[in-house]
Amino acid sequence: MRAARLSRRLPPVYGARVSTVAGLALDDFTALLGAERVVSDEEALRAWRDPYSFASWDEYTASAVVMPETVEEVQEIVRIAGRHGVPLWPISQGRNNGYGGPAPRVHGSVIVSLKNMNRVLEIDEESAFALVEPGVRWFDLYEAIKAGGHRLMLSIADIGWGSVVGNTLDHGITYLPYGQDQMMQCGMEVVLPDGSLMRTGMGAMPGNRSWQMYKRGLGPTPDQLFMQSNYGIVTKMGVWLMPYPETYMPCWVRVWNDADLGEVVDVLRRLMLDGTIRGVPQIINTVLYATIVTERTKWWQGEGPIPDEVLDQMARELDIGRWLMRCAIWGDEAVVDHNFEKLRAAFESIGGVDVWGTKVAPEDIPSLENPHERVQGGVPSLDLNAMAGWYSGEEGGHVGFSPISPLRSGDALELRDLLRSGIEAAGLDYMAAFLPVSARSFAHITLVIFDTKDEAQARAAYDVSKRLVVEAAKLGFGEYRAHLDFMDLAAEQYSWNDHAYMRFCERIKDALDPQGILAPGKQAIWPRSMRNGR
Amino acid sequence: MRAARLSRRLPPVYGARVSTVAGLALDDFTALLGAERVVSDEEALRAWRDPYSFASWDEYTASAVVMPETVEEVQEIVRIAGRHGVPLWPISQGRNNGYGGPAPRVHGSVIVSLKNMNRVLEIDEESAFALVEPGVRWFDLYEAIKAGGHRLMLSIADIGWGSVVGNTLDHGITYLPYGQDQMMQCGMEVVLPDGSLMRTGMGAMPGNRSWQMYKRGLGPTPDQLFMQSNYGIVTKMGVWLMPYPETYMPCWVRVWNDADLGEVVDVLRRLMLDGTIRGVPQIINTVLYATIVTERTKWWQGEGPIPDEVLDQMARELDIGRWLMRCAIWGDEAVVDHNFEKLRAAFESIGGVDVWGTKVAPEDIPSLENPHERVQGGVPSLDLNAMAGWYSGEEGGHVGFSPISPLRSGDALELRDLLRSGIEAAGLDYMAAFLPVSARSFAHITLVIFDTKDEAQARAAYDVSKRLVVEAAKLGFGEYRAHLDFMDLAAEQYSWNDHAYMRFCERIKDALDPQGILAPGKQAIWPRSMRNGR
Repeated sequence: MRAARLSRRLPPVYGARVSTVAGLALDDFTALLGAERVVSDEEALRAWRDPYSFASWDEYTASAVVMPETVEEVQEIVRIAGRHGVPLWPISQGRNNGYGGPAPRVHGSVIVSLKNMNRVLEIDEESAFALVEPGVRWFDLYEAIKAGGHRLMLSIADIGWGSVVGNTLDHGITYLPYGQDQMMQCGMEVVLPDGSLMRTGMGAMPGNRSWQMYKRGLGPTPDQLFMQSNYGIVTKMGVWLMPYPETYMPCWVRVWNDADLGEVVDVLRRLMLDGTIRGVPQIINTVLYATIVTERTKWWQGEGPIPDEVLDQMARELDIGRWLMRCAIWGDEAVVDHNFEKLRAAFESIGGVDVWGTKVAPEDIPSLENPHERVQGGVPSLDLNAMAGWYSGEEGGHVGFSPISPLRSGDALELRDLLRSGIEAAGLDYMAAFLPVSARSFAHITLVIFDTKDEAQARAAYDVSKRLVVEAAKLGFGEYRAHLDFMDLAAEQYSWNDHAYMRFCERIKDALDPQGILAPGKQAIWPRSMRNGR
Repeated sequence: MRAARLSRRLPPVYGARVSTVAGLALDDFTALLGAERVVSDEEALRAWRDPYSFASWDEYTASAVVMPETVEEVQEIVRIAGRHGVPLWPISQGRNNGYGGPAPRVHGSVIVSLKNMNRVLEIDEESAFALVEPGVRWFDLYEAIKAGGHRLMLSIADIGWGSVVGNTLDHGITYLPYGQDQMMQCGMEVVLPDGSLMRTGMGAMPGNRSWQMYKRGLGPTPDQLFMQSNYGIVTKMGVWLMPYPETYMPCWVRVWNDADLGEVVDVLRRLMLDGTIRGVPQIINTVLYATIVTERTKWWQGEGPIPDEVLDQMARELDIGRWLMRCAIWGDEAVVDHNFEKLRAAFESIGGVDVWGTKVAPEDIPSLENPHERVQGGVPSLDLNAMAGWYSGEEGGHVGFSPISPLRSGDALELRDLLRSGIEAAGLDYMAAFLPVSARSFAHITLVIFDTKDEAQARAAYDVSKRLVVEAAKLGFGEYRAHLDFMDLAAEQYSWNDHAYMRFCERIKDALDPQGILAPGKQAIWPRSMRNGR
């Protein structure tokens, strides 16, 4: 019975105390990297815990952090771990917030922080691509493009501090046209669990000219096997960039009535299917947008979640509507004008919806005031990271709970109703953004926000998320990305034909990492030694 | 030394005579399928040989063909093969012409023909996708869409008889917008070598609503692992379709001077990078285009390849230029007009280039006279299959030799020069089409055409192709797809870091197919028993 795996915690092989694991391998890591690139002090290690966890929870704590600077050091770290049987947890910048941050799935793992492997190795203006190391943040690549004078735009995530590679490997969503279907990656270099080094695609041929220009190779294409998995450590990755368009036009679609959401979804699908909208929009609800621009206590100090009449009031007074969709158009001015008129007419025909947008020259995007408009123009910042203090005005956190739904009104509303009612029943505000990764489906990003200093509220947030993982799955909605704390539960829902997919993943795991040293439990893929004999 | 593998032929484990292999498993196959779905007569088996091989060559001949009609039968066939150690060679329609057709890599393999699994399981107009079995041809899916009255277009290959799934699994190229980066596949069902059945992506969750709508799942995405490999038999696949655009405009760019090819390549890259051209164009040389519309003997009866002055004469008199590019624009009429004017101005600025195009309503595409214009409108036919008789006027064949190059003038011309001089030195005409699978790279499709009744000419065609595989690789160009006869040689060129990529492929092979029964040698991936102990 696979249900038994849900309660899996730390088996003896890795469950030893921090000092035990560290004692075995720490000397070797220190000999390789020097003391300054090996962190094992218990107090210092707290910086690598989930920032959105309640302070005294310590389930996901590393025993050490090692910080390689070269590919050879990564290879040697993997070999040392293999000799000592130490589990590694590779991170890039560790900004996987809402899903566990930098913390490892298995207590006592050694974090391999790649943040000092932060070189932009190449930017090619003619063919519009870059080759980067895993520590390169959105900020870094953006600055490197600017410093080189390249007229190229990068499809970025909402918050600029994350790693380009790390975000890509976790199926993270970005918003420019190459964000559709997460398609901007081209070519990888990977350290495998045995310490060997491989290049994918055309990079498998010495001196090939097309490594960052053709997405496949000769033979099977393994790139996506290294995303949301524990099969290797990516040490180089190609990223496609977009040449500056003639004009850029961030657009807004404001929906005054909650009841019109379904129609908005259907119009959006048609506009994405026919290419009028080419990037990845966000349909953001009142509360989520409000976290960036106001404080909760101004509007509601009663018990439980903010009620509908107050949401309507916020929608009016903040001028944001019950749902506010951001999207953008990039292209020749004549085409942008045509597409904007088309999308304006389509959405405004719903009634109770208004649409606006402003054309901007690519050079002027950095001076746009609204951070959402900068993000869709490829200019990173931290301005969209303000939501955390919603309940207390101080520190806060969120759990990301994000199932995929068809981009259709019926499905979208059914999922919305399930999640809203579940979260509100837990006494929390429903905060949501619909992110259509392409024309046919969207990730229902649910930010279950809580005050990290309030243990009961934190517990409630985790509990309701877990309950909804199961309830959403029963209705046919599966998560696109899972928090450490319910990775197993989320994966358990993908159980078609007696978990055939997970059994496949495990066979690959055993073949590539028989010792089970690389990120055990990541995405619920456990090495044989931790599978209760399966 | 991996060079030893180049000369690998049939090892004892599979190299037995046809009758031996057949004798072991044939009874079980017949018990499962009935005699009418098992072919083992030597004469009948000739229909499953490479149609473009010289008649008496029998290196790649099957010992039997089995024809399942259900997924369960495919599973049982795999289990029978496992029991008897019989190598299987799955094909869909077997139209992999130029790369070996239906023939197996290992002599004596049992072909699993999936052509009777030919149901279109679903067509969804709202979200624009289909779910098909592997025997569904371009013709079949096109007809099913039409029969359902759906206003949807399918991105198709040049010749309509091929399988949608088979083409996709071999990285085949199609020409509508979803042809870019071969991106139209979404979701798979796969029979693994042990007979178990898996669904990928959201299909791994029972009852999930987004199997054909979201390309990934939770955890690593294995879909592309089943393309150009021997890891499983795909029994269902999702295909994305495109809603009818307001207008469709096939366009032509005629290049009078061979010397202008480089500039055409650079202009094309810029127009694809900025989205003006969204599908997959073809830049076709004089000889290749001529094979469809004329006979060789009309122009040249001398020794060796057609010389440049005759090519210039053909270019003029056939009105096709030295290079003729086909492409197309799909969309709202205003946008199509804008994009056409932009591409016309860009190409005509080169001089010696003219550009034309005609707008067509989607409903009228089937009545277009030129098959190239129908193909880019998603209407399949066999009209582009006429090139085979070039030398003899009767039967002919070709070897496909197709390296990837950056879509840049310098690279493109260097590759063109290498291939043209090599092929002409072998006494053959240089026939080429450049297929930019997206803005950054193109497949240099080289059709090395020969008379299949002329053994010396056939031998010359194979020999020069093999020589050029190696020479192109030395310059940094690798094949995107390889003919049976030099799969090993082509893969051998992907040798970075002591063949790290192939060693990875072999580890996956050994994990999924320890008995080595599924398509041994496909894409040079051999099971352990056939790797000379490696």
